[in-house]
Amino acid sequence: MPLDHGDPGDAPSTPPPLTAVLNEQRPSPAEETRSVVAATNTATLASLSGDGGPWASFVTYGLLDGQPVLCVSRLAEHGRNLAGDPRASLSIVTPDLPTDPLAGSRVTLAGRVERPTGEEAAAAREAHLAAVPSAKYYIDFSDFTVWVLRVERVRWVGGYGRMDSASSADYAAARPDPIVSVAGRAITHLNDDHADALLDMAKARGGYPDATAAVCERADRYGLDLRVTTPRGIAVTRVGYVAPIDTIGELRSATVELTRLSREA
Amino acid sequence: MPLDHGDPGDAPSTPPPLTAVLNEQRPSPAEETRSVVAATNTATLASLSGDGGPWASFVTYGLLDGQPVLCVSRLAEHGRNLAGDPRASLSIVTPDLPTDPLAGSRVTLAGRVERPTGEEAAAAREAHLAAVPSAKYYIDFSDFTVWVLRVERVRWVGGYGRMDSASSADYAAARPDPIVSVAGRAITHLNDDHADALLDMAKARGGYPDATAAVCERADRYGLDLRVTTPRGIAVTRVGYVAPIDTIGELRSATVELTRLSREA
Repeated sequence: MPLDHGDPGDAPSTPPPLTAVLNEQRPSPAEETRSVVAATNTATLASLSGDGGPWASFVTYGLLDGQPVLCVSRLAEHGRNLAGDPRASLSIVTPDLPTDPLAGSRVTLAGRVERPTGEEAAAAREAHLAAVPSAKYYIDFSDFTVWVLRVERVRWVGGYGRMDSASSADYAAARPDPIVSVAGRAITHLNDDHADALLDMAKARGGYPDATAAVCERADRYGLDLRVTTPRGIAVTRVGYVAPIDTIGELRSATVELTRLSREA
Repeated sequence: MPLDHGDPGDAPSTPPPLTAVLNEQRPSPAEETRSVVAATNTATLASLSGDGGPWASFVTYGLLDGQPVLCVSRLAEHGRNLAGDPRASLSIVTPDLPTDPLAGSRVTLAGRVERPTGEEAAAAREAHLAAVPSAKYYIDFSDFTVWVLRVERVRWVGGYGRMDSASSADYAAARPDPIVSVAGRAITHLNDDHADALLDMAKARGGYPDATAAVCERADRYGLDLRVTTPRGIAVTRVGYVAPIDTIGELRSATVELTRLSREA
């Protein structure tokens, strides 16, 4: 039985596209997760207190091949918790949350922490220091322990109605999106100076020929998320580039090409 | 045996004050916690999965007399977790973290969630909606549950070396500081235009007559946190107002008075 919200009947409805959405390609849940994890250095750790109860605490982390590397003190409750039970989970929230915080991206990783040994211990230490420079002041204190979270479960939530799990293997193999965390200025430019182009994209390639306005909400290596206004209500759609891009410098030509194709349609 | 970091010997040391710190009054740990909790509407929930493992997830909350009010779906793992085991913990991080995230304030609350009934159910619903306006779109969906966290344990971390626990009774009785979350502009003004006054305060009232610079890092209802530079190194000290203030509008006269007293000294 598919799970769905129990709608009491008066929730706003989203108008469906009227024509085909030409290119819906977007990052996979594993890529989305890697992008969120790579975009910051702070997280909340859920660990188990001595009585088995959950304990939420703020932590910093670095990344070793996508595995979070923590550095916590045994003088703190979360440090004692990890030493007592290695089961751990991290929630990581994308920086620069939208006004409606639940519209933003966040992920949960869960697994077990291990103390790295040998070469991995040195690499983990460097990974933490690279992400958290101020850790140099305490990482060598004898009460601090470096832990690597061996990720077993991955859950991504990209906003309302956008969520999925990823396997730990897919998570390990994925790479962060090179665009999404650095596209803020370009998106502002698109919305401020090229609203007409975005509207043409939404009409010709996004499935909303009745759109009256389109706002870019996100750019990633595969395309743009557009929020479209129509006489039928507000919807979100996707306009994929002709080909994925690898650097922010390619975004301009990719969107110029989309505009040209939309206006030829 | 007092617990302390196991210093390997090369950590930076903090120069102690050379003279008395005249007024060190500051918010209590319970007040600090209430201030952090009141300053935002997002948190990370630690709940227990079916296997007893911890699960960290992003949530929004409102406040009912300081008790966090959550609204989560049973279609989501954290919703199922709370329904299966009421033990829960919330980590709440102050908005606008400093560049060094561990220098910022964060708190952990832990206890058990309950479904409010009767008049409290209505009050909890309104409290959540007041803090999270977009919840109006889903709070009445049948898969969503409103939970109140009955706070049993309170832990506050105000930054490096500033941390304490508070009793649940003190937490319940405390009020958020009315200054700390709205003082940003005033602090910028103090630092940009009145650095000389801050330096005089640090010298005359903060215990650092050898200070060569002082930067205001925070203002609360009891006084200012100053970071002072001395030939002996960098330290943080406290300059309390002559009397606590209740509104941001009183900050100017309180700091003018501190400046005058410092220059008379």
